[in-house]
Amino acid sequence: MSIRILAVDPGYEKLGYAVIDRDANHLVAIDYGLIETPRNEPIHLRLKRIYDELMNIVDLLSPQELALERVYFFRNVSTAIGVGQSRGVTLLIAAIRGMKVYEYTPYQVKQSVTGNGRATKSQVQEMVKRLYRLSEAPKSDDVADALAIGWCHGVFARTSEVLNR
Amino acid sequence: MSIRILAVDPGYEKLGYAVIDRDANHLVAIDYGLIETPRNEPIHLRLKRIYDELMNIVDLLSPQELALERVYFFRNVSTAIGVGQSRGVTLLIAAIRGMKVYEYTPYQVKQSVTGNGRATKSQVQEMVKRLYRLSEAPKSDDVADALAIGWCHGVFARTSEVLNR
Repeated sequence: MSIRILAVDPGYEKLGYAVIDRDANHLVAIDYGLIETPRNEPIHLRLKRIYDELMNIVDLLSPQELALERVYFFRNVSTAIGVGQSRGVTLLIAAIRGMKVYEYTPYQVKQSVTGNGRATKSQVQEMVKRLYRLSEAPKSDDVADALAIGWCHGVFARTSEVLNR
Repeated sequence: MSIRILAVDPGYEKLGYAVIDRDANHLVAIDYGLIETPRNEPIHLRLKRIYDELMNIVDLLSPQELALERVYFFRNVSTAIGVGQSRGVTLLIAAIRGMKVYEYTPYQVKQSVTGNGRATKSQVQEMVKRLYRLSEAPKSDDVADALAIGWCHGVFARTSEVLNR
């Protein structure tokens, strides 16, 4: 039986997402991309765009689980508030559509894709390309991060299944 | 002609709201209260409760404008993320229902109700009671803050109308 995962990196001005199928032996990226919103638009309208586009993806592909990164550090308060707002909309969609939610630390995410919890962004980009056998590495950090978060959840969820037996 | 304002203080674990009517000479509190969510519930379900309850108030009372406080300081990152998430859901409702959004600094809010931008919480509670002629001061800081934010918006919006003439 396969589980479909939505992994999201809810950035301040754009949001990276990945939809991943996990069966007993594989993790396959079904869809991935970036939701961007116009810089000159008021924040509430930008949040509605994120809501509409992400809800559209969820209704098209019906993922059962949402994976997110837990974040600890920000340049400043307004960045943290901005990410929190985008995260709030993402979590709301999960609740409305009855998805389970899982969180991982940035260290766990990097560790799971590169073997190194302190890997660089370009190492993460290169490794998600290899792990998912993509034709090219995702250009956007946010998309690479979403794919990495999905990989991390796929690996951890599999382990915890084994542990629960 | 009167304008109906929704003022919100989107806290980490609870959300204070106030619905205020503003005509040429008065600001009247139509409804105010606290939306609280169970501490033991996962955050995405708590955000959905906030969404459902606040949307319910909006659909019942049809406010045209949303007033919020702009926040600059938090104890730590997870508080900022928590407030951001609650704020994201609030802003999404405003966008879905076509409300205009206005933001004020904590200094502007305190200044408008007490005359002192550095007033204490209990001074704000006491002054919103007097200004709105409530039978008692709101017990919750979050509710008093929402009433104060609404007052601030009512006062500023009136001034800017005069200025625009």
